[in-house]
Parts: sequence; C-alpha cells; structure tokens
Amino acid sequence: MESCETRLRRIEDHLAINHLISRYGPLADSGEAELAASLWEPSGVYGIDLGAFDGHAGIVGFLQSPLAVGLRESGSSHVLAPAEVVIEGDRAVATNYSLTIEHAEGQFRVFRSVAARREFARTTDGEWLVRRRLNQALKGSARARELLAAADDSTSFEYREPA
Amino acid sequence: MESCETRLRRIEDHLAINHLISRYGPLADSGEAELAASLWEPSGVYGIDLGAFDGHAGIVGFLQSPLAVGLRESGSSHVLAPAEVVIEGDRAVATNYSLTIEHAEGQFRVFRSVAARREFARTTDGEWLVRRRLNQALKGSARARELLAAADDSTSFEYREPA
Amino acid sequence: MESCETRLRRIEDHLAINHLISRYGPLADSGEAELAASLWEPSGVYGIDLGAFDGHAGIVGFLQSPLAVGLRESGSSHVLAPAEVVIEGDRAVATNYSLTIEHAEGQFRVFRSVAARREFARTTDGEWLVRRRLNQALKGSARARELLAAADDSTSFEYREPA
Repeated sequence: MESCETRLRRIEDHLAINHLISRYGPLADSGEAELAASLWEPSGVYGIDLGAFDGHAGIVGFLQSPLAVGLRESGSSHVLAPAEVVIEGDRAVATNYSLTIEHAEGQFRVFRSVAARREFARTTDGEWLVRRRLNQALKGSARARELLAAADDSTSFEYREPA
Repeated sequence: MESCETRLRRIEDHLAINHLISRYGPLADSGEAELAASLWEPSGVYGIDLGAFDGHAGIVGFLQSPLAVGLRESGSSHVLAPAEVVIEGDRAVATNYSLTIEHAEGQFRVFRSVAARREFARTTDGEWLVRRRLNQALKGSARARELLAAADDSTSFEYREPA
Repeated sequence: MESCETRLRRIEDHLAINHLISRYGPLADSGEAELAASLWEPSGVYGIDLGAFDGHAGIVGFLQSPLAVGLRESGSSHVLAPAEVVIEGDRAVATNYSLTIEHAEGQFRVFRSVAARREFARTTDGEWLVRRRLNQALKGSARARELLAAADDSTSFEYREPA
C-alpha cells in the first residue's frame, strides 16, 4: 500500500505538469517570449516542422520570428486540449493536441492543428521543466500517428528532428 | 469529516477518469483501433449519429470504416475539452465537447463538434472503463441540449440510441 | 512542511474551480440561463466586448438575448481549454481560451476565440463562485495580450470594462 505522501506527491506532480503546459499559450500569444522559453530547461529543445530550436535563446528567436509576430499581432490563440500525462519518478511525458486559431480578414480560422509530445524532468529544486517538445502537424503523416500512438509510453518514442 | 483516504481516492478517481478520456483521441487518430476499443467494457456501447456500435468488435469496426480511415489518413485531430466529471461510488459520468479537425485541400477545418456523455463503471480490479458513450452533434437539436443540460446529473439522462 | 490537510485542500480547490469552469459551456449551450448565471456571485460581473452584464439578472439577460439564442438554436459549442489556475487562500484566478463554434449553412466554423479571465471567491459555505469574468476576443488587441500576460498573477491585472 502506497503512503499518503507518495499519493499526494503524484497528484501534485500532475497538477504541476498541467500548470506548466497551460502556461505556454498565454505567454506565446502575449509575446512574453523570455518567460515562454523559461518553461524549458536551459538546454531544452522545441521541434516543429519548420525546424528545431535549441535552448532559451533558440526558442526566444522562434517566438520573435516574423511568422510568430505576424500571427500574434493579427490575433492568435494557442488552444490546448487536456494532456495525457505519464509520470515516472523524476521524468514525465505529456501528449496533447494544440490548435492555433488565427484571426485574419475579419474571421477566426484554424491555422494549424498539431500533436505535441513534451518530455519533462524534475529539477533539483523539485520544479518541473520541459526537456524537449516535439510538434507534428496533423496532416496525415505516419510520423504524427507514431507520436500519438506513443502517448502512453514514456520511453519507446525515438525523438528525432522534425522532417 | 471525511478521511484522508476517502479524499485521496476521490481525487485519484478524477485523475483516472480524465486519463481515460484523454486516451481516446490519440488512439483514434493513430489508428490503434483495438486499444481505443479497450477503453470500453467488453459489452460497451458507442453511439454516434451514424449509429450505435456495440462491444469491442463493433467499435473497432467503426474505427476501421472507410469514413474513419479516410479522415485519419488525410489528418484528423480529436480535440477534447476538459470534461465535467461526476463520480458516485463505482459509477461516474463525464460530459465534454469534442471537436474533430480535418485536414483537407491544404487547410485545417472544423469537421464536427459534438457533445459527448460517457458513463463509466469501476471494474473489480479497481480500474475504470467506459460503459457507454453517446455523442450528439451540436447542430441545434433538442437532444444535444438535453445531453448538455444533464451534465451534472449521473442518473436522469435517459440513454437512447442516437436518432 | 505543509500538512496533508493543507495539501489535500489545495488539490480539492483546484478540482472545484475546474469543475465550476467546465459547468459554463453545457449550461450556456443548453439554454439553462439561470443555472449558468448561478455560477457567479449574486453581484458578479460578466464582461464581454458587447458590454458588461451585472448580477444574475444581467447575465440571464445576456444568455437570453437574440444573439445568444440565435447562436444556440443553430448549434453552438463553447469549447474551453484547460485553465491556468492560481489559488491564494479564499481567492483564485483562472485564465483560459474559449472557442465558440457555430453551426451555420451546414458547416461548423470558429465563431469566436477569446481569452477569459475569471476571478473567484470562496463563500462562507466553502463553495467557490465567480466574482467576475472578463473575455477579450483574440483579434490582436493590446488589451487581450495584457490579459493573457497576467495569467499567473492574481493581483496586478486591473479589471476594466471591456472597450
């Protein structure tokens, strides 16, 4: 029988990881690029289909790129679905869907739908940070289906650079 | 005053049910039809407006139908909103919205928006499984509004086959 | 070291607040205007870009306005993303995205995407209610970005009537 402490800790880990996931959209859409990047470890990676961005500086660079700024200034919404979270000790994996809604020509439209896999590590301070995040656009690729199929598995998914 | 054990158990039930709900999309969109069906009891039911699918074989059949395969191969996203969950002992009900996003002609579009009501039962092993799930497309029908209005009520909603 | 009781209480507060947030969509989309309004304190405020609605009567009036009824009767979906929730004692703030999907001309479309900030207070009975909720449409305004940037801050965001 697990102790109350162990069970509480696991639940708090879930809350902490979900909080970290929910922080990204508001920071990205409000242009708080440095704070958004600080959700990752200093050497964290953010891989999307445009490329892989390394470390805080790389992630800030992406969030300040003309594409990201343009989307934000016309009005963007990073709408995330609840994540499937698997925690094992000081590591965790979360998989969810993320819609980006754009506002253009007076209308709201789905700009993009991606599956996102985030791998987390607990710091020595007991906080969680993103080690790497990989997005795969849901346009019918085998790679996107592989990422989704690995949602409940913290180890078997081979992290590769986006194609 | 409730015991710590009772309170922990209720919270863990919430996490388990939310986990079960979040499992469906990644399995459906990656074509893991057998695993997706195994979220239901062996005699579980999945009712949508195309019909009701009975048991694991019926649900697998739906997920391997030309409609489901076509949507998946062009790129589908089952984006679920957080569920309103009501737990009573070994039974539970969860109601939420589920968007299906399709990728077609180079664009992402909202293919469907449904309200989903899931009824769960706890197995003798202490796991939760879906007993039945009913989707109602949000196209203005009285039936969809009834399903939503019953979200906080684990008993009064009469389960009927989709019209 | 915090007590088990303090930790359980915080987790239960999170569940209660998320439950309250998830209640709104099903009640709004099913036309249960009185129940939807009762999620607010009697003197609660609901501010959207069409204006600010005061108290239960004001909120009911909005939900029974021709705009709201028309959207509902053609088929509306209030799809909320998981909220970032900050709790401090008997007050809390939650920020999330909310999509309204409409059904019109045989299609589902994104009618609106807003950032929503809700401020909650705990009643003397220990229940949580919404004190005020402010929506900002995500159409590129500085005000919407300010609201999102304040998601992790329970105090600094100045509540103003929508412009």
